[in-house]
Amino acid sequence: MRILGIDPGLQCTGFGVIEADGPRLAYVASGTIKTTGVPTGDLPARIKILFEGVREVVETYKPDCAALEIVFVNVNPQSTLLLGQARGAALAALTSAGLGVNEYTALQMKKAVVGHGHAKKEQIQAMVQHLLKLPGLPGKDAADALGLAVMHAHASVSFTAMSAKGQLQRRQHAQFKGGRTY
Amino acid sequence: MRILGIDPGLQCTGFGVIEADGPRLAYVASGTIKTTGVPTGDLPARIKILFEGVREVVETYKPDCAALEIVFVNVNPQSTLLLGQARGAALAALTSAGLGVNEYTALQMKKAVVGHGHAKKEQIQAMVQHLLKLPGLPGKDAADALGLAVMHAHASVSFTAMSAKGQLQRRQHAQFKGGRTY
Repeated sequence: MRILGIDPGLQCTGFGVIEADGPRLAYVASGTIKTTGVPTGDLPARIKILFEGVREVVETYKPDCAALEIVFVNVNPQSTLLLGQARGAALAALTSAGLGVNEYTALQMKKAVVGHGHAKKEQIQAMVQHLLKLPGLPGKDAADALGLAVMHAHASVSFTAMSAKGQLQRRQHAQFKGGRTY
Repeated sequence: MRILGIDPGLQCTGFGVIEADGPRLAYVASGTIKTTGVPTGDLPARIKILFEGVREVVETYKPDCAALEIVFVNVNPQSTLLLGQARGAALAALTSAGLGVNEYTALQMKKAVVGHGHAKKEQIQAMVQHLLKLPGLPGKDAADALGLAVMHAHASVSFTAMSAKGQLQRRQHAQFKGGRTY
């Protein structure tokens, strides 16, 4: 199963692609989609870059499914509105390309990758490098996106194992789905 | 010039298409894209419907440009985040279809259509019916969307007139662009 992780942001959206064969994980690609080339005030142009960037990643790496970070409200409501629009564009790019989108919080991703929810950016980068046997540290946004893909791979393995043992219950299914989906 | 107006919302997105030939306006089509057919919690499915709905409107009516409402922060931050995602999906659909997007606030639209910014929904519906010579009242969301298209038609006429008189100054251009673009 090839998984695309997306960490959405208006200035910089991280992406990471991995191959998951049961518990075995392999790195495929990662990077960032930056909208800093256009004026900050030109929101339509920034959303276009973001949407087309995610679409290009999907077309290039042909993932089977996606894992998208659930974003939270910011102390600044205007920032919340802008981040929401960036996430909406990423979500539109993924769903309109026919991909199933699994949503996880940063807390869930940190727990899955580092082992606890208070992990710092540097710890996520180091752990992603270790798990995927990368020759160097991935960038912060790319590391978050790869972390989301790893999170989904872990959740899928747990889900498959539970299904095989006939332990699949409503509660566990909710947990697999990320606990909250709005 | 064929203008598509979009009033974005996660539950219901209004659209309205008009033809503007200088000051003469003609109704083409209007309606709503509803996401109420899928469970409220399935945000990816709702965003997919919204994105594909806007794309279908663009493909069917082939507008030359679009007018999109600038949304504001809600008292409920979670609602702001959801509305932002809906607007991001609409913006992605318009820009990735190659349309130029002009952004206006509801206040600007009300001033252009009714004459003052405190107009109620019913007044907008009645005025849109009058301006576009419709046989009946348009729905509320469709009326807002048609109002945004009318707003852009007015702004374009003013802009052209100012250009012809050589009065085009930086301040006036900013006004034409909608005053604020984030």
